[in-house]
Amino acid sequence: MSIITLTTDFGLADSYVGMMKGVILSIAPDAKLVDLSHEMAPQNIRQAAYVLHAAVPYFPTGTVHLAVVDPGVGSDRRALAVRTSRGCLVGPDNGVFTLFLADEPGAECRAITNPVFMLPRVSVTFHGRDVFAPVAAHLARGLDIAQLGPRVTDPGMFAIPVPTQQSDGSWLGHILYADHFGNLITSVTEDWVRRNGDVEISIGQRRIAGLCRAYAEAAPGELVALVGSSGYMEISIVNGSAAQSLGLGPDAPVVLRAIHQAAQK
Amino acid sequence: MSIITLTTDFGLADSYVGMMKGVILSIAPDAKLVDLSHEMAPQNIRQAAYVLHAAVPYFPTGTVHLAVVDPGVGSDRRALAVRTSRGCLVGPDNGVFTLFLADEPGAECRAITNPVFMLPRVSVTFHGRDVFAPVAAHLARGLDIAQLGPRVTDPGMFAIPVPTQQSDGSWLGHILYADHFGNLITSVTEDWVRRNGDVEISIGQRRIAGLCRAYAEAAPGELVALVGSSGYMEISIVNGSAAQSLGLGPDAPVVLRAIHQAAQK
Amino acid sequence: MSIITLTTDFGLADSYVGMMKGVILSIAPDAKLVDLSHEMAPQNIRQAAYVLHAAVPYFPTGTVHLAVVDPGVGSDRRALAVRTSRGCLVGPDNGVFTLFLADEPGAECRAITNPVFMLPRVSVTFHGRDVFAPVAAHLARGLDIAQLGPRVTDPGMFAIPVPTQQSDGSWLGHILYADHFGNLITSVTEDWVRRNGDVEISIGQRRIAGLCRAYAEAAPGELVALVGSSGYMEISIVNGSAAQSLGLGPDAPVVLRAIHQAAQK
Repeated sequence: MSIITLTTDFGLADSYVGMMKGVILSIAPDAKLVDLSHEMAPQNIRQAAYVLHAAVPYFPTGTVHLAVVDPGVGSDRRALAVRTSRGCLVGPDNGVFTLFLADEPGAECRAITNPVFMLPRVSVTFHGRDVFAPVAAHLARGLDIAQLGPRVTDPGMFAIPVPTQQSDGSWLGHILYADHFGNLITSVTEDWVRRNGDVEISIGQRRIAGLCRAYAEAAPGELVALVGSSGYMEISIVNGSAAQSLGLGPDAPVVLRAIHQAAQK
Repeated sequence: MSIITLTTDFGLADSYVGMMKGVILSIAPDAKLVDLSHEMAPQNIRQAAYVLHAAVPYFPTGTVHLAVVDPGVGSDRRALAVRTSRGCLVGPDNGVFTLFLADEPGAECRAITNPVFMLPRVSVTFHGRDVFAPVAAHLARGLDIAQLGPRVTDPGMFAIPVPTQQSDGSWLGHILYADHFGNLITSVTEDWVRRNGDVEISIGQRRIAGLCRAYAEAAPGELVALVGSSGYMEISIVNGSAAQSLGLGPDAPVVLRAIHQAAQK
Repeated sequence: MSIITLTTDFGLADSYVGMMKGVILSIAPDAKLVDLSHEMAPQNIRQAAYVLHAAVPYFPTGTVHLAVVDPGVGSDRRALAVRTSRGCLVGPDNGVFTLFLADEPGAECRAITNPVFMLPRVSVTFHGRDVFAPVAAHLARGLDIAQLGPRVTDPGMFAIPVPTQQSDGSWLGHILYADHFGNLITSVTEDWVRRNGDVEISIGQRRIAGLCRAYAEAAPGELVALVGSSGYMEISIVNGSAAQSLGLGPDAPVVLRAIHQAAQK
């Protein structure tokens, strides 16, 4: 028995996700289906990349992860299957697996070209249903990804945003996305925080003096920074929405200064 | 082991859908539950009819499909079970199964009247939980629909909207509904397109010269028409929302003219 | 095989709920996962308490119910497991189980302190994933809740709102929350209605003369009161939204007068 997770930008208002599940269960009746999210912003590959990457470590080894955020459906973008040390990834070759490929540069990538593992009739608008869902089901049943098609050595990847040092010694990071609570998830990793010690954070017109450890350390309504549960620095308002209060979203700059440096000014 | 799909207008904010699943799993612990959509517009029977009809072909034969969009709950509208060649349908007798009954006019329909297959106490406001969920669970366990109640020969059906020819030779169709991406799904079927050849499409103040095959054939932001993944002509904006850009929704007219005819004008 | 339900305020846009499911299936691969709702208003403990309490009776005995609405995460609020006659409850000790504890004052409560049943690394912001999900999975596999930690005799509870009699003989109740259809669920229970006979209801500027039995007894657009499917009096607009039409929400007052008394005025 195997688990298949689904991450898409299809929303839940239509039956698109349901169709994919019907296709999967027709091929792998014992598969366990787990929705990660179907509310990725339409065509937002980077958000899907981060949301999926944060969730995968919590699933058993051998899980198949399906990611369908696919603005290029019907073009000549390739369909991709990737075998990592934790399981298989299936989706369009548009960068949605960038963070996994950075973790494991040697992961085996295959272009999905073998029609045996697709639906008999492949539409030009819905490869999630006609290509990716049946392939995920076959992988969950134990198919070797080598059967899917030729090896890919140049899978699509976006440039992973990391904080860059400015001429004044400060570091420039960015907001990646806002979550359901309005927490602003930044490009600053837990590792970066550990290496750089405590920092003063400037975001919009506001400054935050140092990271706190837990929401409960601050008062309701207070603006705080902390390393969130997915391993990135987050800007939050305790029991409120930082995204709404600050009016900020993806790509907004976050400036970090070492606390001693900030104190000298 | 059997699959039961659920389509409702209950939304996901309350535990109404969860209650139905609790009832089902109490009767059929091994059933696989698949949500099609719980975001049908409240009391919109026609939308639920189309969304369910598009998804059913992708499920294994023998699947039980539960559809609860039920403005008449507590009235004397009948409760219905239908046996089609692909599986069973369970829901109110209000037209939600119209498209299936048009496909298979001979499908066996039964009024659900046998209290043995309902919850002991049936509320007047929530037959989804008290009647339809337990019946679906019993059908998934192999119950013959003949046990549910008397045969129905006049199930409720709405008039299926099809393009009608106008005095000037053009055809008049309509928008059925908009999906999550803002694609406007029309009443024009793939079959109609095949029979009538290429057409110029007028919608709102805009004209579209012919159908394209895939989004990727057009530029981002371009207004296109194509046969969508559910077998109906859709009006779309590439990587955008046609519903929002055109300000159109259900029942808006779509006029189609044979390309040669349009050229003559 | 065991069922685990999930009720949270995490929304479905992120992969937080998915992570919890990954953790559960890593420990209890055969567990059946059922979402009750992930759209509780952020940090609204009372809404979650009512929504969960309404759903539990429809699940088989032995089901584990996970409720994570947790504004105090990272503080010293306790983590709680409760064994009721119907199954186990797992979540923060913040009142979310109040209605169950009122039903069964003798239910065994345990503080979750044993790290053996948590993830190896417990974050300070996401106990849903790191504490409550693994504990629920272990309980679904048959763990005795006594293994989790010391007995708790003073679990957190909020004051359950009940109608109180006013000096003029009328009763004052309140709106608890609005559901997806805009039905306003009140603090007036079915039992209260049964004991007090028919009443005239005043809500906002409107009066309703007596309860009806089913929506279908009234015309579309009519404002009605009835005992809803969860056992509370609801204020509804037939095929419409009472919450929107009346502009009312949680905590709005509802005044009830015995019909004979109202008639005398």
